Amino acid sequence: MQPSDNDTSIRQASLEEVDTGPVDGLILEERLGYALRRAQLKVFKHFDDAMREHDIRPAQFSSLVVIEGYPGVTQSSLAQTLAIDPPRVVNLVNSLEERGLAMRVRCKRDRRSHGIFLTKQGEALVDKLKELSRQSDLAATQALSEIERRQLLMLLRKIYAPADNAD
Amino acid sequence: MQPSDNDTSIRQASLEEVDTGPVDGLILEERLGYALRRAQLKVFKHFDDAMREHDIRPAQFSSLVVIEGYPGVTQSSLAQTLAIDPPRVVNLVNSLEERGLAMRVRCKRDRRSHGIFLTKQGEALVDKLKELSRQSDLAATQALSEIERRQLLMLLRKIYAPADNAD
Repeated sequence: MQPSDNDTSIRQASLEEVDTGPVDGLILEERLGYALRRAQLKVFKHFDDAMREHDIRPAQFSSLVVIEGYPGVTQSSLAQTLAIDPPRVVNLVNSLEERGLAMRVRCKRDRRSHGIFLTKQGEALVDKLKELSRQSDLAATQALSEIERRQLLMLLRKIYAPADNAD
Repeated sequence: MQPSDNDTSIRQASLEEVDTGPVDGLILEERLGYALRRAQLKVFKHFDDAMREHDIRPAQFSSLVVIEGYPGVTQSSLAQTLAIDPPRVVNLVNSLEERGLAMRVRCKRDRRSHGIFLTKQGEALVDKLKELSRQSDLAATQALSEIERRQLLMLLRKIYAPADNAD
């Protein structure tokens, strides 16, 4: 807590002490929102670096994983699953098609709609990328034991999917 | 895991089943990076909504908290603490000055450098915002018990500040 008075001499003293470098010990550190953001940025940086080696952006990786898990998934399901805007999904799927990693196939029942499938090349790449993402997760969280990692995953899921944990 | 053969009839069958809505149960859910992002987005949305009522952006809130904790902090310390680019910090501090929440004060020792302080109005607002951020943290993580929240905070800190936890 700060002293509430406005004594300039006290403040000038602290000014000369805190003239460079990051500061810490703030109430921010008590906030889960802040800690989540800091941890997420760190893990994401590892992941982004790993994907970059294959010229793959994170959203492309997630899309490949969803398409692999649900062959024939529609663009609208993909958009909902990844919580991204439908127009962005169109570009995303275009970029995967251009790279020869996925393809749109017309649906038998409703010929206006398309299902998305991986190509052989996409299947091979997604296997490699999944392993890389596993390794980057481990590298970014090497300060945690395996039990702590499971614990963290369980706590995070409780936050973003509380319905699964309702009594 | 996917069957590795390319039987189109199998794929068409799944296509007709998965024609709408989000899908789940993917390997993504096993990744800490993914779970961190999902949880962070949820907590951040609560926080952003709470700040919006006071026309405050998240980076402005963090800045106010740092300035409160370290009266006279320099722009470069603030940039390092919040891990944002120096040019962005200039705009950030300008926006706080324009709102009458903070002010730059010339440093006694080095007259080219400035320390940043909260105004009385800034001090009053930051108190209110800290309480709001505490409440939004709780609301966004209401699926967790208090013990689970402390556990989560500890695990997240181990990821982003592993040096503090080194043996």
